[in-house]
Amino acid sequence: MEIAIPLFDRFTALDAIGPYQVLSGLPGANVRFLGPEPGAVRSDNRMLTVLVDGRWEDASAPDVLVVPGGVGTRALLGDERLLDWVRAVHEQTRYTTSVCTGSLVLAAAGLLDGLDATTHWMERDTLGELGACPVPARVVEQGKIVTAAGVSAGIDMALRLVELLTNAEIAQAIQLGIEYDPQPPFDAGSPEKAPAETVELVRAAIAQSEAEAEAAAG
Amino acid sequence: MEIAIPLFDRFTALDAIGPYQVLSGLPGANVRFLGPEPGAVRSDNRMLTVLVDGRWEDASAPDVLVVPGGVGTRALLGDERLLDWVRAVHEQTRYTTSVCTGSLVLAAAGLLDGLDATTHWMERDTLGELGACPVPARVVEQGKIVTAAGVSAGIDMALRLVELLTNAEIAQAIQLGIEYDPQPPFDAGSPEKAPAETVELVRAAIAQSEAEAEAAAG
Repeated sequence: MEIAIPLFDRFTALDAIGPYQVLSGLPGANVRFLGPEPGAVRSDNRMLTVLVDGRWEDASAPDVLVVPGGVGTRALLGDERLLDWVRAVHEQTRYTTSVCTGSLVLAAAGLLDGLDATTHWMERDTLGELGACPVPARVVEQGKIVTAAGVSAGIDMALRLVELLTNAEIAQAIQLGIEYDPQPPFDAGSPEKAPAETVELVRAAIAQSEAEAEAAAG
Repeated sequence: MEIAIPLFDRFTALDAIGPYQVLSGLPGANVRFLGPEPGAVRSDNRMLTVLVDGRWEDASAPDVLVVPGGVGTRALLGDERLLDWVRAVHEQTRYTTSVCTGSLVLAAAGLLDGLDATTHWMERDTLGELGACPVPARVVEQGKIVTAAGVSAGIDMALRLVELLTNAEIAQAIQLGIEYDPQPPFDAGSPEKAPAETVELVRAAIAQSEAEAEAAAG
């Protein structure tokens, strides 16, 4: 079972690591992190550096594709090299998936045209502009395409993927292995639940970090 | 706000990345991953490689210490270099914390003697043998020492830490930013909730991976 997770400059770490932690528990799984080129790839806030030994195209026929998000996805929406690879592997995957703004990449590749899909709550409009039908759900399944909401939603999605790829018993065993019995100290994890002023605060903070990333990218 | 996350051979990725994703959202936060030496550090299953530019001791006075777990912790319980550093920085931290079997390292350093603490559910006995009082809770606070249960529990712990370090409003904003509105497809995330046969399955699988790690370590 080959699982490919393409990384890129300014990816969001938990988008990639949540599904990796779950999917690497699949019997016989081989999770490969890939980059634009072999070498160092840095996260959105520059605090984490992942070393990859292969480029995206080195995964030519993964069973599962997981595209993470992050402010770096903005620069990828016109990256024909990445989009060509995504389209090519999608032909052969068992599941083509995304976390957070990774779904914008799937949409830019034309895979979500007219399909329900989800993304980080702040980018639902962008997802719609790219041809998908944004749904405010944590995980959206459309045939073999599965999209997850922002950042932490990739953990929930990956457990569902394990069930789809094997069975509920193995998914539950992996859940127990990572002791995923979430007990967040607050109930503020979605814009529908958080206080309105918190939503505005986060909206402003993320818009600022996107502007900074765009400025840094020239 | 300096946050130090020491990595080591065979760490569990989500133990480290969950808290990193949350704590890096703190205003002014600088999360540093450190290794035994600068260079590549590989996760428990060898599928993820993190590149660090500093060694543990390069963080001499972090505000927050987060010790992740993983099968690699077993080799650290007699690593006086690491334990000396943990004891030294603990003197000055605002919070000394662990995720999963990271608490075994805190215990081996003598920081948990007689204190309530938690760890991965499979290692509660080991934690007790190292002098702590194991508690089957997701997050345990004992003054400035905060321990979290297995793997994914570091996310919940880190949100609580943000509240302790700042306030509930900022913690909620970070929770919303990472859209942490968990909806696991099963309710099998703790040994008290999972079916008995799942508990035995995971117990056997983890024991096997620990034996493999020990064999590989010679």
